[in-house]
Amino acid sequence: MSGPPARERMAAEMERLHDDATAFFQRLDGGGGFREDRWSRPGGGGGVARVLADGATFEKAGVNRSAVSGVLPAGAAARLGARVPGGEETMFYATGVSLVVHPWSPKIPTAHLNVRYFELTDLAGVPLDAWLGGGTDLTPTYPYPEDAAHFHRALKAVCDRHHSSFYGRFKSWCDHYFVNTHRNDERRGIGGIFFDNLRDGESGLGLERLVSFVLDVGAALPAAYEPIVRRRRDEAYGERERRFQLARRGRYVEFNLVHDRGTVFGLQTGARIESVLMSLPPLAAWDYAPEYAPGSFEAELLAMLEPRDWAAASS
Amino acid sequence: MSGPPARERMAAEMERLHDDATAFFQRLDGGGGFREDRWSRPGGGGGVARVLADGATFEKAGVNRSAVSGVLPAGAAARLGARVPGGEETMFYATGVSLVVHPWSPKIPTAHLNVRYFELTDLAGVPLDAWLGGGTDLTPTYPYPEDAAHFHRALKAVCDRHHSSFYGRFKSWCDHYFVNTHRNDERRGIGGIFFDNLRDGESGLGLERLVSFVLDVGAALPAAYEPIVRRRRDEAYGERERRFQLARRGRYVEFNLVHDRGTVFGLQTGARIESVLMSLPPLAAWDYAPEYAPGSFEAELLAMLEPRDWAAASS
Repeated sequence: MSGPPARERMAAEMERLHDDATAFFQRLDGGGGFREDRWSRPGGGGGVARVLADGATFEKAGVNRSAVSGVLPAGAAARLGARVPGGEETMFYATGVSLVVHPWSPKIPTAHLNVRYFELTDLAGVPLDAWLGGGTDLTPTYPYPEDAAHFHRALKAVCDRHHSSFYGRFKSWCDHYFVNTHRNDERRGIGGIFFDNLRDGESGLGLERLVSFVLDVGAALPAAYEPIVRRRRDEAYGERERRFQLARRGRYVEFNLVHDRGTVFGLQTGARIESVLMSLPPLAAWDYAPEYAPGSFEAELLAMLEPRDWAAASS
Repeated sequence: MSGPPARERMAAEMERLHDDATAFFQRLDGGGGFREDRWSRPGGGGGVARVLADGATFEKAGVNRSAVSGVLPAGAAARLGARVPGGEETMFYATGVSLVVHPWSPKIPTAHLNVRYFELTDLAGVPLDAWLGGGTDLTPTYPYPEDAAHFHRALKAVCDRHHSSFYGRFKSWCDHYFVNTHRNDERRGIGGIFFDNLRDGESGLGLERLVSFVLDVGAALPAAYEPIVRRRRDEAYGERERRFQLARRGRYVEFNLVHDRGTVFGLQTGARIESVLMSLPPLAAWDYAPEYAPGSFEAELLAMLEPRDWAAASS
């Protein structure tokens, strides 16, 4: 057990992850380059947004880093899961990396990853709470069970290196988090892992060990996602697959604007709006009450959204 | 002054408005036909959704009618502006017509209209409150000040027939309602009129007179919108205008999912989700941090979103 890591150390780790993720996606795209915007927040801190638009593989790839601080209104800390009295203002510090990539091809799934470190103090700077959070998940348009299985097995391997309980717990957490409750509990995608409020002592691990875990999650995509991109990028597709991709992206928009706590936190704390909403797809569609024939690829994809034990799947 | 109009009477008026609006847009489209879905709500009531997709003029036109009733959780009535104690459950009845049309051409603005009647009783059925609400507003992609002026003048003429204060008050209410507060207070469009909680005695008018006003608003689009559609439908446009239209639609999605109280009410009361979200555009785009050159049509359109006195404009 140990005290919270220095903010400077966590910010430096996030900077490294951010650079690694940018280089990774620039290489994986095979064509486009990232535009970079540095922004600062009137209340304290700032970030670096990097966006690749109209790439060779990715229609849009956004890789964000931020380190922000300021005052949280009374009650806000409790809503974030903090172990603090709900009725008072607190000071927060948060640093993290967040990325979303929207491929052109409906055969390649959309990927999302986020890792973050959060600290709370009282108004005098006395530490109140500190935790880590993060996760990564996949949103396919086309039903390839073997891709879902690959992604989950890669995440299980990352988790298993740190604690035998992590994959099962964080996979289930993910299944319960990315849910469009207003759409009859339809999941956003085929899941992955999600976790939050991991504190010193979690599962017997000190904060340093948890930091190692979270940084491993932040570096998971070359093993978990790149092989999927490479084996699907040259597959043919048509207008029908593209339209279904745009409709699935519509559900992605609904989740992010209505339910996602990172987005809501960003809107509330006055972070740079273009960075907060960088996760939104470049193009999305809403088709009215579509019906998909049994056995169609669309129906098969929707069936795949029901949570299942992908890491143990036989495919 | 009089008591609340019979629910049956209001439901019948809404049915007539719904039929009129469907016939109007079918004629105005000049090509497509409406699909109709009737739905019922487990908690009570139901509605009729009519959608025209891929029409000649409209990429999507949705005209909804609903009459729903049920129990509101404690506090919900107060959030709707009801004059009732906030701490108790109430019974509600609501009937209304809501429509949104998304034209293909970026030269034709998107139009929205809604009229509604709302009643609250206690759990024993004793009347607590009753009111009317509604409005109509325009969301252009291309900057035609004369179209904004025409729309507002037509609405002012409707309002002026009922009370000299209505246009000014309800125009201002609209300007303050359709605001993307998370986008530095950018307005969704060039406004129109918006009003809610109009009760018996409002501005010295009895409920019957208010019903007449609201029904006139419900019938305003043939005068306020049709001339705009007819003079813009044959104008040429290119990829650049279309892309900006899709980006403006992205802001439309943001407003409806994050801020619109009708949408939030629909999501909370378990109305049919495909009807609640029928207002969403068929296709929308999010461009990252776009910059528009001074003097470009995009910059001119954005400048037009700043509220101004369109009915008095000289154009």
